[in-house]
Amino acid sequence: MDVIAAANAREAALPPDAPRILRMEVGQPGFGAPEGAVAAAERALRSGSTLGYTEAFGMPSLRARIARHYREHYGVAVPERRIAVTVGASGAFPLAFLAAFDRGDRVAMAAPFYPPYANILAALGMEPVLLECDAGSRFQPTLAMLEKLDPLPDGLIVASPCNPAGTMLAPDELRAIARWCHDKGVRLVSDEIYHGLSWGTVAESTAAAFSPSAVVVNSFSKYWCMTGWRIGWLVLPDDLVRPVECLAQNMFISAPHVAQVAAEAAMDCTEELEARKASYARSRAALLAGLPEAGFGRIAAADGAFYLWCDLHGMSNDSLDFAARMLEGAGIAATPGVDFDRARGHRFLRFSYCGDEGAMREAPGRLREWLRRG
Amino acid sequence: MDVIAAANAREAALPPDAPRILRMEVGQPGFGAPEGAVAAAERALRSGSTLGYTEAFGMPSLRARIARHYREHYGVAVPERRIAVTVGASGAFPLAFLAAFDRGDRVAMAAPFYPPYANILAALGMEPVLLECDAGSRFQPTLAMLEKLDPLPDGLIVASPCNPAGTMLAPDELRAIARWCHDKGVRLVSDEIYHGLSWGTVAESTAAAFSPSAVVVNSFSKYWCMTGWRIGWLVLPDDLVRPVECLAQNMFISAPHVAQVAAEAAMDCTEELEARKASYARSRAALLAGLPEAGFGRIAAADGAFYLWCDLHGMSNDSLDFAARMLEGAGIAATPGVDFDRARGHRFLRFSYCGDEGAMREAPGRLREWLRRG
Repeated sequence: MDVIAAANAREAALPPDAPRILRMEVGQPGFGAPEGAVAAAERALRSGSTLGYTEAFGMPSLRARIARHYREHYGVAVPERRIAVTVGASGAFPLAFLAAFDRGDRVAMAAPFYPPYANILAALGMEPVLLECDAGSRFQPTLAMLEKLDPLPDGLIVASPCNPAGTMLAPDELRAIARWCHDKGVRLVSDEIYHGLSWGTVAESTAAAFSPSAVVVNSFSKYWCMTGWRIGWLVLPDDLVRPVECLAQNMFISAPHVAQVAAEAAMDCTEELEARKASYARSRAALLAGLPEAGFGRIAAADGAFYLWCDLHGMSNDSLDFAARMLEGAGIAATPGVDFDRARGHRFLRFSYCGDEGAMREAPGRLREWLRRG
Repeated sequence: MDVIAAANAREAALPPDAPRILRMEVGQPGFGAPEGAVAAAERALRSGSTLGYTEAFGMPSLRARIARHYREHYGVAVPERRIAVTVGASGAFPLAFLAAFDRGDRVAMAAPFYPPYANILAALGMEPVLLECDAGSRFQPTLAMLEKLDPLPDGLIVASPCNPAGTMLAPDELRAIARWCHDKGVRLVSDEIYHGLSWGTVAESTAAAFSPSAVVVNSFSKYWCMTGWRIGWLVLPDDLVRPVECLAQNMFISAPHVAQVAAEAAMDCTEELEARKASYARSRAALLAGLPEAGFGRIAAADGAFYLWCDLHGMSNDSLDFAARMLEGAGIAATPGVDFDRARGHRFLRFSYCGDEGAMREAPGRLREWLRRG
């Protein structure tokens, strides 16, 4: 948030004819909801429906559409009764954590990680357990790391593709972790919000295929470009359906109605969304080609999402300072690694490439120039 | 929820030419968002804006508009920095409770009460303390009740107008409670979501006028008829602004963007909304005239909201059974009091009159007829 504010301030202070700031700090697509989703929302608004509360778990038609997505996209049968539509993935985490864990429970996750995992757990009195991950395991946890934990944690959060590293777990790795969790009574929470955005290096798989006890979190924010609509979903194991439903009724009543209508339509906007994905792919390719030349030689395996996690080895040992100087000197905003890993993030920077494609193509040249100037 | 499901099932089972079920169990207006709000949402959808995340506390223009509402409606200056736009009032409660209270804290509230207060507190490890209220204090807590509490609670929730009783605290009562809470270090949470819907028996006042330490919860769901948009707000005391902002960033990112746009416009739709309010007022008058004749002689002071809290004295001692028989025999759905007061609600029934005005006018006759038949 501070990075965004700094970039906004810098942007506002620029003379009108100066080159603009390249925004590589934001975690949301530069695109809005697909046309078909917007059109469905407009129809709903004009329909005269009161657009009141829906059922706590969402409109039956949307839950059915999500179940169909599991059949078509993953070849997995997920019954509608296990699908809960939520107020984004953000709204899904507190529900999942409160239902799955007790106060004092220890929940493991890879570091670096998406900060709200730990912040929400801490706010609810649970304890994050960080697994220090590096390029050797694609910044993902391994079975070996889990087996070394003593005592065993009560839960494990995995994210594939993950934020900030953009790396993925291969299907056999995710399967092995899911089965180990199920066998050991460790509740697996699988964050799959970047599904749909993977680049062919690793196949996409869902924990719902591998474990009846896993909680899957997903969202319409990323592939479907609907961040501000606040709409996501959970796939719940049978034993958590009723507890989460009670919590959701009390804490949310329901997800936003018009967002549910739009989300259902978005799931049929594949052509438009695949074109956007192709734009991210071009941005990714330009950056993967240009960043090493510019001096960023150590980039985590860019399997998915729209992030590049860059090791600043040899360039800086202070990512906050580096990001501030880069904003000032190169006119490029990116997120310091310390936001995602307090212990080791000072050596890393996260570039996001979901913004304007032209800006992404321009970034390596600016960086090369700036680093050359010293 | 069970009542709504039972009413739906009964409705579906009726022959096509039978009189319809009169829906007096629902807590949401029969109207949708006002026209100006829908039009603003449509314009936003067509504008090409990506409708991405807003700031965690909402769009600055909406926060400013809410601050203006405090100046105009209450004559109270509330700085914008203390206003947080939330995912409905439902989303506001967990934020307020987590920021204001610690695990194990005891939070007092009148019984009968809106069940999510206690359910959310319990989910977060806090302890509801029920103050048994009756018609003698308009089903509201009094200073005398609070002073008798030993030990003092850590917090107090008040609601005026309240759900289910529809009663209000007079301004001097709310002021006295707010000052007592402030002086004693008891955190006051004032649920003001039914503001705008009061019927002249008691003046409306906000806790924000009386206490710098009170948390005010409000919503666009009731007066502004925007239930399914999931949009509300908090007025925060200075010391809770930053803690709530951190929690909101992690647990919500922001409230739905298009709902924020619509809500801001809704605040200027006074003429349309006042016409709806006049319809509720006519329904209320018809019920207050007709229900006593039908046999419901003991109704709580109907100061505000759109609820009538009826004492079943002499008619039934089992509100669940009474409601089920009333649905079957009179074709009227209402909510059994046990939903709002486990200990004493078996003697009470909540009628909601925010539905169709014609249905509300028809209800007393049907009830009289049904009760006469015995």
